[in-house]
Amino acid sequence: MEKFDIAIVGSGPAGISAAITAKVRNMNFRLFGNQQISKKLQLTKLIENYPGEYNISGQQLIDKYKKQLSSMQIDIVTERIINIYDMSDYFIIVSDKQQYQCDSVVLACGIPFGKTINGEKLYLGKGVSYCATCDGNFYRDKTLAVYCDNEKLEEEVEYLLKLAKKVYLYCPYSTNLKDDKLTVLTSAFQKLSGDMKLKSVELNDKQIIDVDGCFIFRNEVDPSNLISGLKMNEGHVIVDYNMATNIKGVFACGDLTGRPYQIAKALGQGNIAILSAIEYLYKNRK
Amino acid sequence: MEKFDIAIVGSGPAGISAAITAKVRNMNFRLFGNQQISKKLQLTKLIENYPGEYNISGQQLIDKYKKQLSSMQIDIVTERIINIYDMSDYFIIVSDKQQYQCDSVVLACGIPFGKTINGEKLYLGKGVSYCATCDGNFYRDKTLAVYCDNEKLEEEVEYLLKLAKKVYLYCPYSTNLKDDKLTVLTSAFQKLSGDMKLKSVELNDKQIIDVDGCFIFRNEVDPSNLISGLKMNEGHVIVDYNMATNIKGVFACGDLTGRPYQIAKALGQGNIAILSAIEYLYKNRK
Repeated sequence: MEKFDIAIVGSGPAGISAAITAKVRNMNFRLFGNQQISKKLQLTKLIENYPGEYNISGQQLIDKYKKQLSSMQIDIVTERIINIYDMSDYFIIVSDKQQYQCDSVVLACGIPFGKTINGEKLYLGKGVSYCATCDGNFYRDKTLAVYCDNEKLEEEVEYLLKLAKKVYLYCPYSTNLKDDKLTVLTSAFQKLSGDMKLKSVELNDKQIIDVDGCFIFRNEVDPSNLISGLKMNEGHVIVDYNMATNIKGVFACGDLTGRPYQIAKALGQGNIAILSAIEYLYKNRK
Repeated sequence: MEKFDIAIVGSGPAGISAAITAKVRNMNFRLFGNQQISKKLQLTKLIENYPGEYNISGQQLIDKYKKQLSSMQIDIVTERIINIYDMSDYFIIVSDKQQYQCDSVVLACGIPFGKTINGEKLYLGKGVSYCATCDGNFYRDKTLAVYCDNEKLEEEVEYLLKLAKKVYLYCPYSTNLKDDKLTVLTSAFQKLSGDMKLKSVELNDKQIIDVDGCFIFRNEVDPSNLISGLKMNEGHVIVDYNMATNIKGVFACGDLTGRPYQIAKALGQGNIAILSAIEYLYKNRK
């Protein structure tokens, strides 16, 4: 298993700010994110208050970040982080492709755009999964409900189509996926139900579909689903002045720490979070 | 007296970040600083971790900020702030030129480069002054010690030369000032002494000069000298998570809140501070 000092989870402005300072400080780290840097930024037409760049578009800023990462030889590891396990003196990072070991974590994964589905948290690990590669095999020849919010994540759906008996898919966009086993739904998931395990999905149009499992593919994840025991307040990670969370060695920055949802704030918090992580490592290794 | 909503004191990265967001939010504010933006930034050869700009020089960043301020029609008021008086439900801002009234203050004035002089705080208002225009008249035909750390502040010294009987000047640079009343010292001020009032200045070479007053001209000021009752810790203003200080309506950001002395941190804190000030104004006016 690959080992390094710090995992930066998220490639938006907070994660970028953390990564470039980690590089300057010569740390052994990985930046997990996606090539488009940030979907939210990509959708932003105009930023008036980016310090140094008046009226820059989100895409222009993304291009600037990409150029900087390339100049500084920082690669984005384009794997989705599914789970982070706190092993007390180190962390295991589980992506949709492999596992890593590291000593400190900087969460910079933003806040989910949409709401989570009613019952999603309740049945997580009891029928609800975020990772086809990790859990797909448990649903061989079973019936699945799948929510996919991003075309780029459709390879996960294709993988499930190879295994499952039947897949009911809802996407908030128009998909080109076609398969004999596939039914594309036009109504979104309203509620997940069951007893000890997930048994059915209720749609917005009141239709109820009996399923063995439900896969949810979103670019953004709820950080409290990512790492167990993380203290949250109304959907935001609680951090102190140094961006430390309640879990030793885990720091958070950017939108997921709460309002204001501003780029400049994310840059500042990313900077503080990584410096706090570096200080934590030094103290820990003394 | 000119009135406005918010005084932003300091034109470094924290003050710039605060000002551009204040402008976007359409606030009535003033940005107090100097045309060179930030002396510290000007002296910075290379910044590796400015988000979006790899290996930018301090001067290049200053030029970018200037261009942005100009595009957004934000003027820098190039007056030195000497004092801020908390009038309980508003503030009086005293500059070296005039007075203003405002409802909220964002301190972004950085930390002084050099140490303060031993006794400076003790005799502030009892012989020590930061402003020739404000206090010069009290020293007509008297003997003065003057510390001036910046050529651009020499007009204050010239003003004092017109009034005083004798001026002993120390500058940490080579000055071209000449006057019959002037003695340029080669040894710095080590200690200010007196009883209820300042009486003498001891130099590093142990020479003691009897004086009636001492003027200190620095670009940067100690924020606790600026506003009475501001809670500090080891030279830094104590702020909470929202950048609020212990004084209602006063917020602080950037280097003066403590380490890390990083530009990205200053940008983030400037953003948070101004949004907190705006929220404070709305709540206060309800």
